[in-house]
Amino acid sequence: MKKYRASIITIGDEILIGQVIDTNSAVIAAELNKIGIWVHRKLAVGDDTQAIIESLKEEEQHSDIILITGGLGPTKDDITKQVLCEYFGGKLIVNEKVKEYVLYLFNEVYRRPVIEVNLKQAEVPDVCEVIHNKRGSAPGMIFRKKDKIFFSMPGVPHEMKGMMEDDIVPMLQKEFITQNIIHRTLLTAGVGESFLAEKIKDFENALPTWIKLAYLPNNSMVRLRLTASGENIDKEINSQFEQLKKQVADFLVADEDITLETKLGKILNEQKKTMATAESCTGGYIAHLLTANPKSSSFFTGSVVCYDKRIKESVLDVDHDLLEKEGTVNETVVIQMVKGILKLMGSDYGLAVTGLMGPDAGGEDKPVGTVWIGVGNREKIETQEFHFRFDRRRNIEITAVNALNMMRKFILKKVDS
Amino acid sequence: MKKYRASIITIGDEILIGQVIDTNSAVIAAELNKIGIWVHRKLAVGDDTQAIIESLKEEEQHSDIILITGGLGPTKDDITKQVLCEYFGGKLIVNEKVKEYVLYLFNEVYRRPVIEVNLKQAEVPDVCEVIHNKRGSAPGMIFRKKDKIFFSMPGVPHEMKGMMEDDIVPMLQKEFITQNIIHRTLLTAGVGESFLAEKIKDFENALPTWIKLAYLPNNSMVRLRLTASGENIDKEINSQFEQLKKQVADFLVADEDITLETKLGKILNEQKKTMATAESCTGGYIAHLLTANPKSSSFFTGSVVCYDKRIKESVLDVDHDLLEKEGTVNETVVIQMVKGILKLMGSDYGLAVTGLMGPDAGGEDKPVGTVWIGVGNREKIETQEFHFRFDRRRNIEITAVNALNMMRKFILKKVDS
Repeated sequence: MKKYRASIITIGDEILIGQVIDTNSAVIAAELNKIGIWVHRKLAVGDDTQAIIESLKEEEQHSDIILITGGLGPTKDDITKQVLCEYFGGKLIVNEKVKEYVLYLFNEVYRRPVIEVNLKQAEVPDVCEVIHNKRGSAPGMIFRKKDKIFFSMPGVPHEMKGMMEDDIVPMLQKEFITQNIIHRTLLTAGVGESFLAEKIKDFENALPTWIKLAYLPNNSMVRLRLTASGENIDKEINSQFEQLKKQVADFLVADEDITLETKLGKILNEQKKTMATAESCTGGYIAHLLTANPKSSSFFTGSVVCYDKRIKESVLDVDHDLLEKEGTVNETVVIQMVKGILKLMGSDYGLAVTGLMGPDAGGEDKPVGTVWIGVGNREKIETQEFHFRFDRRRNIEITAVNALNMMRKFILKKVDS
Repeated sequence: MKKYRASIITIGDEILIGQVIDTNSAVIAAELNKIGIWVHRKLAVGDDTQAIIESLKEEEQHSDIILITGGLGPTKDDITKQVLCEYFGGKLIVNEKVKEYVLYLFNEVYRRPVIEVNLKQAEVPDVCEVIHNKRGSAPGMIFRKKDKIFFSMPGVPHEMKGMMEDDIVPMLQKEFITQNIIHRTLLTAGVGESFLAEKIKDFENALPTWIKLAYLPNNSMVRLRLTASGENIDKEINSQFEQLKKQVADFLVADEDITLETKLGKILNEQKKTMATAESCTGGYIAHLLTANPKSSSFFTGSVVCYDKRIKESVLDVDHDLLEKEGTVNETVVIQMVKGILKLMGSDYGLAVTGLMGPDAGGEDKPVGTVWIGVGNREKIETQEFHFRFDRRRNIEITAVNALNMMRKFILKKVDS
């Protein structure tokens, strides 16, 4: 069976000067991957006619399917539509359906006057097939050249994502008989990539050549992914995956491709228990991670971000003299924070963090990167001290990972015992 | 003066299947941009010999400087070093300095046994110049081919970033006399890209051809950026920038390339005032944005994430009967939340949000996307109702933007009056 290759071209100067992180191409790649189309290359070029034309010429050599995003906005710097029109030898004509929809959007939804540049969105090359954009005024476009197919999508992330899901993926599935690709992913925490690699060396060497193992490290977590493509491969890959799980059992967080916070939420929901957080140095980031989950209202009661020292005292009942004498970053404070949040929120479990995220120590007599984490319930509280040595942002992220993982282990231990 | 072009090549299957978002190339691009090197293309390819070699061949046609990141890890799927060695016709030899450093890292810093794969990190192609990696065990490499230069960096984000800042940028500055590039960026909020474009149409058309205007929309904010390169251009670009500021004065948040939350922090620090947040539907995201700023401890007292309805009542003093009769998403509740957080935190200003982020309404008798935001101080509270129609993540982000902008405007109005 033919293995189709795709290229993704992202267009926009903002990507090339690093002012914007390109998340669109990751979304497109994940969608294609699900239906068994391999992304061979991802390319980003600027809002520049010559660069766009070169990218089209090259990627049509590399791939069968070319997906383009960006540069379809109404403003002067957006030139993708004009360049595509030129490249495929067409001319711009008004599409009445798109025009009607733009008018509808402005009159009925945005309730703003339509201005000339908006109406230009209704002009499309006469050599393309138009994809209706339910979420905005820039239509998508399909071009064909010999046996290659090109899709052009808007760069606004939710418009692009919607068009991928609603239109392009179903069309690709219909038109290209795609092969079966299976990924099996597990998540580990608390162990380095090279240590894991050493531990599963024999397993890796014994893998059939058609199954690929990948290490995906991120913060203090490593995802391990087995990938295979073909027919009738489920049994073999599942059996290999079970072996892999056994090998990394000590560090295993989840045996599916979910985040640590999603896994923690699942455990709490299964047990019908709730948790709350008291956050100093993470400033609400842990609560944010937990509440990104739409199911969080059933297991997350809330959080106190006690950024000011006095709030630790007034809201969480941390001892005044302790804070004055010992400062805010120590084991006794974190224990009192856990107790305080359990009392205030009435939750089954509590998690607290206090630390110094940098770049300076904010008057505390401790090295930057010192963090105390506490997790517990009404019977027991466990604590741990950490020393991180990254920048502020990464210290916050890594503190959150360690806190959530401590909470997860604490809850599971309660169940086992 | 020669205008140098750069290409960035990111290597890793995880990028191509969309499991990881490539932030590295944005960091590299931003660093190059600061020193006046234009990134012409960004390319991502998989951990595949043929694909990597093709990418090297192509990018050396397009650019003078090629920066490569990823694929230098100790595990089997990382093949960048071997491929580069082959491409530049070298062989792998042990570099004693790197070996010493790897041993030091494991013995003194990580305090873990060194295993065989870690020592392999000390092998480098004999045709490259080694860049010491202060933050990890994989060294950077420099290769030269005719007048082209290639840099290979690890893919771990903080290792790559450190190597860019400490080694590669200073070296590029020394070796390539780069031209002067000036960006002037401003931030607007509360207005669409096309409306802005219409408003500043005449300004844009009158711009000298060597000054480029770009629109960078994100959530409900649009950044406008003027860019020019050359000598003695400061006066003209500054004068154009002042004109642009006047044109968008009604929506102007900041006249520099900073975020809304950084601007709000600056205003509060200048006024020596503090704020606190009471967050229901945003789940701590606003507190997280504010505390990402290292200077936040001087203006941010804290937050209560009152995710559970009962916490609104018990911690923030929202009226029990009101919550029972009218539900949690209405103007009276948000006003009481502002009052509650001001009292609890003792801050000068308070901000509160309550709403339905989706995908379902969680038992409330309101459409998903309904949000009430309140901002105020002890004298006055202002409220506004919003209806967003995006997915959960975007609804949270856009609520945060609107809340922070309402807070900013409220504080500035207090000063003006």
